[in-house]
Amino acid sequence: MADQDTRDRSGLQIIAYEECLRLLREHYVGRIGFVENGEVAILPVNYRLLGTSVVFRTSVGGKLHAAERERPASFQIDGFDELYQSGWSVLVKGTVASIDDPDTLAQLEEVPLTPWAAAQERPYWVRLIPHEITGRRI
Amino acid sequence: MADQDTRDRSGLQIIAYEECLRLLREHYVGRIGFVENGEVAILPVNYRLLGTSVVFRTSVGGKLHAAERERPASFQIDGFDELYQSGWSVLVKGTVASIDDPDTLAQLEEVPLTPWAAAQERPYWVRLIPHEITGRRI
Repeated sequence: MADQDTRDRSGLQIIAYEECLRLLREHYVGRIGFVENGEVAILPVNYRLLGTSVVFRTSVGGKLHAAERERPASFQIDGFDELYQSGWSVLVKGTVASIDDPDTLAQLEEVPLTPWAAAQERPYWVRLIPHEITGRRI
Repeated sequence: MADQDTRDRSGLQIIAYEECLRLLREHYVGRIGFVENGEVAILPVNYRLLGTSVVFRTSVGGKLHAAERERPASFQIDGFDELYQSGWSVLVKGTVASIDDPDTLAQLEEVPLTPWAAAQERPYWVRLIPHEITGRRI
């Protein structure tokens, strides 16, 4: 596991895996990125971490469409301080999948997650199953 | 042009084009999203708006590699208030291209932009040429 002083080839400080998970647990809004009609969509979502999976609610549409096909997708959170020119960023690469399993859905009912876009009901749960979680700090 | 009260099919308020440009002009850190080895990368960048193009500096690597091939890419900025569960998001879809034209490069020398990752020199300028700029507010 990388320690706090390990840097990548760009000179950015590598955030260790456990610290990435801690940052993911402590935040509630991030961005899901996926390819739709040959273009990259990046949309904000209210999320929670369930184990190491990023889970969020969605309605029928682009995000769920991606989920139904189990397409590659990524999730990102970050924080900046423009004054001090410092910041951090965590990127979760994985595959989005619909959550249909009744036990998992029952477990999710306990998760305190209100959709970011509350204007319309978003009854579907989607999970980003990670195969890589990385973070950088400057 | 959409007015402030126009909503999309998800019930989100559509941000008018001119307001999207204003938000892009007023901020300095965003996220570039592109496909790399079949996966979606989302990375923070320090940027400026030059006309309607998003410009940023980069070193040799993923971001510039994408630029050299003039691949589709997107750029996103957002702002949230978790307490009040409100926020906004602007998405620029387009094509990333290296900037090689001497006149444009001279113009860019006047742009007050320090790379977010200052640890290593990032001598290359990249431009995201937009074909769609959209925004949403909740």
